[in-house]
Amino acid sequence: MQTTTALSPGVIKEHIDAQLAAYFEKRRVESVALGASYAQLWKSLETLVMAGGKRFRPYMVVLAHQAYAPEEAIQPILPAAAAQELVHQAVLIHDDIIDRDTIRYGIDNITGQYNTLYAPFITDTNERHHMATSAALLAGDILLSDAHHFMHALKKPETMVQRASDILSTAVFEVVGGELLDTEVSFLPPGSISPEIIAHYKTASYSFVSPLTMGAVLGGAGEKEVATLTELSLHLGIGYQLRDDLIGMFGDSAVTGKSTTTDITEGKRTFLVERFEACATKTQKASFAAAFHNQDATPQEIAACKQALIDSGAKAAVEAEITKHEQAARACIDTLTIQPKAKELFHGLTDKCLSREA
Amino acid sequence: MQTTTALSPGVIKEHIDAQLAAYFEKRRVESVALGASYAQLWKSLETLVMAGGKRFRPYMVVLAHQAYAPEEAIQPILPAAAAQELVHQAVLIHDDIIDRDTIRYGIDNITGQYNTLYAPFITDTNERHHMATSAALLAGDILLSDAHHFMHALKKPETMVQRASDILSTAVFEVVGGELLDTEVSFLPPGSISPEIIAHYKTASYSFVSPLTMGAVLGGAGEKEVATLTELSLHLGIGYQLRDDLIGMFGDSAVTGKSTTTDITEGKRTFLVERFEACATKTQKASFAAAFHNQDATPQEIAACKQALIDSGAKAAVEAEITKHEQAARACIDTLTIQPKAKELFHGLTDKCLSREA
Repeated sequence: MQTTTALSPGVIKEHIDAQLAAYFEKRRVESVALGASYAQLWKSLETLVMAGGKRFRPYMVVLAHQAYAPEEAIQPILPAAAAQELVHQAVLIHDDIIDRDTIRYGIDNITGQYNTLYAPFITDTNERHHMATSAALLAGDILLSDAHHFMHALKKPETMVQRASDILSTAVFEVVGGELLDTEVSFLPPGSISPEIIAHYKTASYSFVSPLTMGAVLGGAGEKEVATLTELSLHLGIGYQLRDDLIGMFGDSAVTGKSTTTDITEGKRTFLVERFEACATKTQKASFAAAFHNQDATPQEIAACKQALIDSGAKAAVEAEITKHEQAARACIDTLTIQPKAKELFHGLTDKCLSREA
Repeated sequence: MQTTTALSPGVIKEHIDAQLAAYFEKRRVESVALGASYAQLWKSLETLVMAGGKRFRPYMVVLAHQAYAPEEAIQPILPAAAAQELVHQAVLIHDDIIDRDTIRYGIDNITGQYNTLYAPFITDTNERHHMATSAALLAGDILLSDAHHFMHALKKPETMVQRASDILSTAVFEVVGGELLDTEVSFLPPGSISPEIIAHYKTASYSFVSPLTMGAVLGGAGEKEVATLTELSLHLGIGYQLRDDLIGMFGDSAVTGKSTTTDITEGKRTFLVERFEACATKTQKASFAAAFHNQDATPQEIAACKQALIDSGAKAAVEAEITKHEQAARACIDTLTIQPKAKELFHGLTDKCLSREA
């Protein structure tokens, strides 16, 4: 029987990191047959993936599995937890290409690393960036492919593996759609795509629904439980995104390590902005418009923009929305047919997602 | 029992196209939940994939399966054949991003289609192209993911499915490496990466080894047969690439539908070029250098370059190399433990790959 110690996020992270390290080692050895270039890609991937990430999705897989099969060892389901992490890393690598970012976890991402690696061979910076991005594109591809392959290493009955693989495929299908919507929302006419649907498909689906329902299925949960977990996951995921929007706007940069001005100056159309537009006065809208989507906005204009978001009641409306998701999440947890101790862990997860400050 | 009619490439193509059409229809319906944007991506994917492609890899899966299990129906293994096609289409979509191409099968590829779709919303052509490329990146991702998911639809014993999935994963691992090498060969110092290793990993591995060995495994072939088929596939794949290089240089544009000058003017480092460098005289090298990697080369310079490739003996050396691969392939076929009729089909495949003119 597992002790509750095995369930701590830190312990799960150790298990997953060990599995990922072994995977990178194996792939790097295999890649040598293709030459030093390919071995370098694996080195870059390992550097990136092992540099950061809280392994939050693997933790959720294990959490849900243990809720339904507390007496089972976690080893047989670790490949599913690792698969979730690889999908996540593939999504991040390709998302960085779309966002034209070169930094992740505070270090160079794949494009960033290859910009340096290719510098001696390609002098034109645009050309070099294209080639570096091509390496990142391929790097994301192989992680995505290997995520699926990890599922075949699950030591579970075939029908369970099948069901878990369906969940993984649906997650990829939905996050690809969510990424597309998130890309298009930046240039399609306002109102074309709602932030809620982006939060659902870009975040909640692959980051919450997929790990929690997969863990539960591998723990033997029935369809009714899986349906409740899906509902719970959507509340957690959408609530998480709402909290993210608030932190991105009103958080403490010293705590979050993120800018609290770029969401404004880049004109990111969050829930908060949508609520604001529905309830702001003319004067508030004018203050807002002076800084929103304006890279040259002054600190004073940005401060006034934020104040308008507060004064209009938009911030409070988003806080209330988070509270609604929190209450709904807790109601879902209460109806799950699991032990009180497991419910406590789900409540702890809810705190972590919805009450965090960073 | 299957009739030999069921084995014709045309009949296999019909089966696969029906399966792909049903898949696109299902995904398009599912995508509507995420909104019109995602449904559009599925429409674009369907337009592209159904516009072209000979379904050559699915044909090889079925060919090898039938060689080892001639009395079995092909329906249970069609998902594996479709998976091979989806990997191929995903590779093409991402390869087009790397090569900055917007045309495939004579129509707009995903980037091309989205350049048009986004035109009303994004005036800056660079920005629009980036967003269109992002859509293509996501489109390739979902096909790659779904290729793996198709494997779970195989109606075969678990150990067989496991083995077939290993083959698919290895194919993706190798083609990603091959693509990386093919990208880097364009700017790394000459001699860093051999055309042979690129042909092996970018072409032979996923386009020949993977479909033929997967089909054989699903037909119950033992490891010795699979090893011989792997060797055969490498001869076919590398020979295919050599033939491709010759066609790209000396083929009849009217027959191939491809330019026979771009390999020269873009400075593509093929086997042929490598052989040339090893055996050409100083004068021949001068004629060659005037047109190679020179976008402004005149038709006369290009003709002289091609003549130098012939006069040096490089063309004949590549022809001889193809003959060697052909003989080795036929020797492999002769040692396979399959019916004479099945061997005939493998010999036919060899003709198709190595003696083609387009």
